[in-house]
Amino acid sequence: MKKYALIVAGGSGTRMKSPFPKQFIDVNGKPLLMHTFQAFMNFDSNFEFVLVLPEGEIDTWKKLCENHSFSMKHLVVKGGKTRFQSVKNGLKQINEEGIVFIHDGVRPLVSAQTIANCFQTALRKGNALPVIAPSESVREVFNGQNKAVDRNRFFLVQTPQTFRIQLIQDAYNQEYLPEFTDDASVLENTGKKIYLVEGNRENIKITYPEDLKLASLLLY
Amino acid sequence: MKKYALIVAGGSGTRMKSPFPKQFIDVNGKPLLMHTFQAFMNFDSNFEFVLVLPEGEIDTWKKLCENHSFSMKHLVVKGGKTRFQSVKNGLKQINEEGIVFIHDGVRPLVSAQTIANCFQTALRKGNALPVIAPSESVREVFNGQNKAVDRNRFFLVQTPQTFRIQLIQDAYNQEYLPEFTDDASVLENTGKKIYLVEGNRENIKITYPEDLKLASLLLY
Repeated sequence: MKKYALIVAGGSGTRMKSPFPKQFIDVNGKPLLMHTFQAFMNFDSNFEFVLVLPEGEIDTWKKLCENHSFSMKHLVVKGGKTRFQSVKNGLKQINEEGIVFIHDGVRPLVSAQTIANCFQTALRKGNALPVIAPSESVREVFNGQNKAVDRNRFFLVQTPQTFRIQLIQDAYNQEYLPEFTDDASVLENTGKKIYLVEGNRENIKITYPEDLKLASLLLY
Repeated sequence: MKKYALIVAGGSGTRMKSPFPKQFIDVNGKPLLMHTFQAFMNFDSNFEFVLVLPEGEIDTWKKLCENHSFSMKHLVVKGGKTRFQSVKNGLKQINEEGIVFIHDGVRPLVSAQTIANCFQTALRKGNALPVIAPSESVREVFNGQNKAVDRNRFFLVQTPQTFRIQLIQDAYNQEYLPEFTDDASVLENTGKKIYLVEGNRENIKITYPEDLKLASLLLY
């Protein structure tokens, strides 16, 4: 059973107050994105990697790989205008059966346990979505009002969103809808049930300078 | 206009894997809880402090205050069996008009800006609740199913939950209901509209060892 990590890295550095795209920011001596590759290798050294990058960043990435003697084999694919199109471009490059883990490039703190949870459930059920319970109370806003809601009803969604390859390729043949906020919502729109598994709390999307400080403490 | 910080510290150290209650854990040379006091002093050095602690921890706290020559004047109040009862005990000690900021003892990273946002809105509207938008997709669970929901409809709630004193004292005279997950939900049940203001993303409730690492980077 082949395992593909489809890593999507399309972010800018705006909220990070960085001049570089945030996936290229140096953390403890190497670009954030390389730590993300390593997280998958920590689970299984036989991962196949597909990396989706904006066209304008591909040369920079290749130079970074040279400078850091980055040896993990991977296919680089040009991103699209939207995340939907970027993932679709990446999925098109996969021609074998197996499981694909679609993952944010700036989530280097995903644990081997989270990846294992996703893998086991996707194998049995066809898909797996890592989530965590919010540690805060939750409020819902509607018509200019807001009200407390039962936080036990809600989960925060992480990646890797994990699928049997054929299943998610078929789902991405749909026309794009604005409700497609992530890969699970694309599959869900075909009528499939989504299976939740436990994520890990540190598996944050590195977005703000504080996140980067935490990452530099936890990565090496 | 008097300003009261009612600080509620009833947590254990279980999820922190600490033998101490987490509010007493040392961060950069002083107990977490002292950093929380400092956050309010950074906004206004005229705050009045009411600290609610479990009965069994009051002696430890007094010793810590001595050891650290902690000089911020504060009233210590015995907590109740539930957070609701603890806050109620604290509110009973306030006999003046003004604004009360009800705050988790283990949120030392609240910014002066968040406190200012709360203060200004509570002055004008009677209450203010600091919130942040989730940075993740959100899923709702119901009847064993789950579905993607529009994350723009949801906010994660922080503290200090801020009120005109009389208003929240009256609300806490209600009988306890299980829906009372925070102070705003207690006021809301009396029919009052709740006003949301912007919190700050670092204002996390220190719960896990990773949170403590971040706090030690951001506090001094």
